[in-house]
Amino acid sequence: MTVRTIEVREKVMARNDELAAEVRDRLADAGVVALNLVSSPGAGKTLLLERTLARLGGELRIAVVAGDVQTQNDADRIARHTNRLVQAVVTNGACHLDARQILAALDAIDLAQTDLVLIENVGNLVCPASWDLGEAAKVVIFSVPEGEDKPLKYPKMFQQARYAVLNKVDLLPYVPFDRDLAVRHAHTVNPALRFFFTSALTGEGLDLWCDFVRHCATQEALG
Amino acid sequence: MTVRTIEVREKVMARNDELAAEVRDRLADAGVVALNLVSSPGAGKTLLLERTLARLGGELRIAVVAGDVQTQNDADRIARHTNRLVQAVVTNGACHLDARQILAALDAIDLAQTDLVLIENVGNLVCPASWDLGEAAKVVIFSVPEGEDKPLKYPKMFQQARYAVLNKVDLLPYVPFDRDLAVRHAHTVNPALRFFFTSALTGEGLDLWCDFVRHCATQEALG
Repeated sequence: MTVRTIEVREKVMARNDELAAEVRDRLADAGVVALNLVSSPGAGKTLLLERTLARLGGELRIAVVAGDVQTQNDADRIARHTNRLVQAVVTNGACHLDARQILAALDAIDLAQTDLVLIENVGNLVCPASWDLGEAAKVVIFSVPEGEDKPLKYPKMFQQARYAVLNKVDLLPYVPFDRDLAVRHAHTVNPALRFFFTSALTGEGLDLWCDFVRHCATQEALG
Repeated sequence: MTVRTIEVREKVMARNDELAAEVRDRLADAGVVALNLVSSPGAGKTLLLERTLARLGGELRIAVVAGDVQTQNDADRIARHTNRLVQAVVTNGACHLDARQILAALDAIDLAQTDLVLIENVGNLVCPASWDLGEAAKVVIFSVPEGEDKPLKYPKMFQQARYAVLNKVDLLPYVPFDRDLAVRHAHTVNPALRFFFTSALTGEGLDLWCDFVRHCATQEALG
């Protein structure tokens, strides 16, 4: 029983990797970079995306794919900040996005008229770590109230990510949280992880974050 | 391919349900109630458990099963607050506890000398909703900084739970969060959900929560 389950799982993952390669080829052909934003529920992915679109929507052509388990709430929120199409992917209970869904979303995006694709994954620090979506990089977002131990407790996600955003830094005065320790924990599991410190709510740190996003769109930041 | 995957998944779930029934029988025979605590990463499950053991450990014989993806950190933290054995279950990357793991943990617990079993699930608002562990009830913990939309965005977990703890109420002055709206959202997906409002950090609301846990141990609260 167990063996057969693992066999099927491996086939499913292998098929996902094939489709992710297809996504990656399509994006490369069009010269478009995609970032896969992953986090716990409630870490602030959606607000960070809203703020990013509000700041950069005028200068960059950003396409958004917003994944959610049951609702389109995030996509609807994000759509208010852009006049471009926001692709909502409802996973019907599944705990992660997969490459097939991204491939389908790309069909509706005019890549020739796009500078950057931002993918908001399902809120989950475990499962999305295992699913390649064909992105150029994963960005893991975690937030101050979640505690500085998250990189140690969910190491695979922090290993898979190339960038980390520590969000909700406006709450640092109100919760026991050692920012340096959080960074040390993250670098224990992934020494190459590059950090941003933001409050999507107050705007703190968004200048540096948006510079990074801008550089991604021009493919200068990812090497 | 897809059909075969679903078939195997159904067999795995059916086997889990059989094992959960075995857990339930064993607990019933011993007259012991088990609660399954589920939440996002960083919602405060572990601190709530620490506080609960510090307050009730003298009067109740509480056994704890602490699940985690890769570490024993939570179990180690909890063990400092009790002189009883804390069972650590490391899922090796899996996104939820399953009934087989609980059955194995029960083997190490002297149920005749136990009043209550508290299970700390993996931090994940999606997958643990689908896995019956043989518990008397699921308790979903969510926290103020996560936002009041969590019940709508992760409805299955709030439907499966019989009790909800809104934790980190000490942060209400510092984040945009409408407590009544959060409760209304939760009751939209599960009208019978009973709420507790706590700050495990400051101790606010822990009297009512501990009364509830005490009643669970004497099987008065669960009907």
